[in-house]
Amino acid sequence: MKVLLRNYIESNQKMIQEELTKHFHQIDIPERLKKSMLYSLEAGGKRLRPILLLASYEAYASQIEKTLHTAIALEMIHTYSLIHDDLPAMDDDDYRRGLLTNHKAFDEATAILAGDALLTYSFELITNDQHLTDKEKLYMIQLLTRASGPTGMVAGQILDMEAENKAVNLEQLEKIHLLKTGELLKFAVTAGAFLGNATDDQIKHLQKFAHYLGLIFQVQDDILDVTGDQEKLGKAVGSDETNNKSTYPKLLGLDGAIEMRNRYTDQAKDLLKQANADTSRLAELTDYFSQRDH
Amino acid sequence: MKVLLRNYIESNQKMIQEELTKHFHQIDIPERLKKSMLYSLEAGGKRLRPILLLASYEAYASQIEKTLHTAIALEMIHTYSLIHDDLPAMDDDDYRRGLLTNHKAFDEATAILAGDALLTYSFELITNDQHLTDKEKLYMIQLLTRASGPTGMVAGQILDMEAENKAVNLEQLEKIHLLKTGELLKFAVTAGAFLGNATDDQIKHLQKFAHYLGLIFQVQDDILDVTGDQEKLGKAVGSDETNNKSTYPKLLGLDGAIEMRNRYTDQAKDLLKQANADTSRLAELTDYFSQRDH
Repeated sequence: MKVLLRNYIESNQKMIQEELTKHFHQIDIPERLKKSMLYSLEAGGKRLRPILLLASYEAYASQIEKTLHTAIALEMIHTYSLIHDDLPAMDDDDYRRGLLTNHKAFDEATAILAGDALLTYSFELITNDQHLTDKEKLYMIQLLTRASGPTGMVAGQILDMEAENKAVNLEQLEKIHLLKTGELLKFAVTAGAFLGNATDDQIKHLQKFAHYLGLIFQVQDDILDVTGDQEKLGKAVGSDETNNKSTYPKLLGLDGAIEMRNRYTDQAKDLLKQANADTSRLAELTDYFSQRDH
Repeated sequence: MKVLLRNYIESNQKMIQEELTKHFHQIDIPERLKKSMLYSLEAGGKRLRPILLLASYEAYASQIEKTLHTAIALEMIHTYSLIHDDLPAMDDDDYRRGLLTNHKAFDEATAILAGDALLTYSFELITNDQHLTDKEKLYMIQLLTRASGPTGMVAGQILDMEAENKAVNLEQLEKIHLLKTGELLKFAVTAGAFLGNATDDQIKHLQKFAHYLGLIFQVQDDILDVTGDQEKLGKAVGSDETNNKSTYPKLLGLDGAIEMRNRYTDQAKDLLKQANADTSRLAELTDYFSQRDH
């Protein structure tokens, strides 16, 4: 990773972490629920989604206070989805990023409620934003519900479950990933550009870019499950094989998956050039998504 | 129940049922997820919360289209909370209103996701409302997140869990109920009055009224668990005793609980008189809450 990008990511991670937790000092939440929510919010997430939102905004504008509530609402929704995904009835994972999953550190009921609370509170945060107009807040809430609800991420989760232990072709696989992972990434890019006053045409190009970014993210995830370092990933490798999951390497072979990732990376960066703005940071992040080792 | 009130409730139940499901024809949701969401939305709920919202609105205004999205968003949030509450890790109930609970009719993972989807979609519905101004929509979303999230209903759920098998005094019991049940009832009354352009002072009186209504609802729930008819309730009676739950009859005796319910009912109706509007329907509903047999 280039030094400048690393600095950018690390300084934003720090800022996002501070923003994520500062709201909790001001609101009255029962102790155990608060602890459980904070546990997962502080469990070492890479903050890729809020950073992507910031980078998209910065391609068009510079007053980043405008993005903060939306960015952390997005991270809260991502976090809730991980808590619920890890539950015994779903993926049944004991560890995430090297730490106990929420229901292991607390209990299943608390984990269900912590997820529900993070999801609900994320929308409240946007309504409380002092830096957005009413119209902007509403549009952010609308985009975020569509990206995360029954037409977005949750749709992807149910399709993913249904695909378990079934033969799935590339088209079906990509549909699942575009819903389950891609929709929140597309939200990040769209919300950032919209708040930065990008034109409709610019936003359209960025949304096409986000489509490929979502796929890059997932191909690389699948590749890392084959070639990755357990230590760096903070989770076991080879679990896709064990769980008989459909993946890019399984459908295309490892070389085919790497080739596809590189092709998507080129396409994503081409689309960025058409967005008619300073998208150099987004291009760097695309390489980072494509090359990440954890 | 008076005939006129029964007509009012039944015609509104019908309208709310139609409103609840019509949106599902327009949006693209994976089949199994849609079925699971609709299953619980159509599982015979009494629609008390949206009806309360309508009645509160009608004390001040008559253009009821203004309330519909908010009213069904509220019912969706109530429904999601029941689905998650019934899960094995929470109350572990197999039946509700005489039907299999969601995770029994489908499976646990689907029930978790159906709850998440209903919660998320409820906020989207408010953003899509053609009858409200941006300011009204945002205020509705803000009130609803506060009532249902970590400072409201979810807080009540975690406190309720923590109180299991513990000696709880009346003050603690009422705090739990006011959060777990009362906050959504207070939202119904507040939202209705606000959308009907009630004054701040009128809304304050109604919120005090809603405080007692939440308590009435819960005392009667506890009383029915002792004296109720299993057939009418659609669930087993005596479960509070079996589960060693703190209840009004346990703390005050059955007669004491009935006396308290009647006292709260009088207080609620007194407060209604101070709200300076045609609150006769709300008064009838208060009696209905107080006297209901299921």
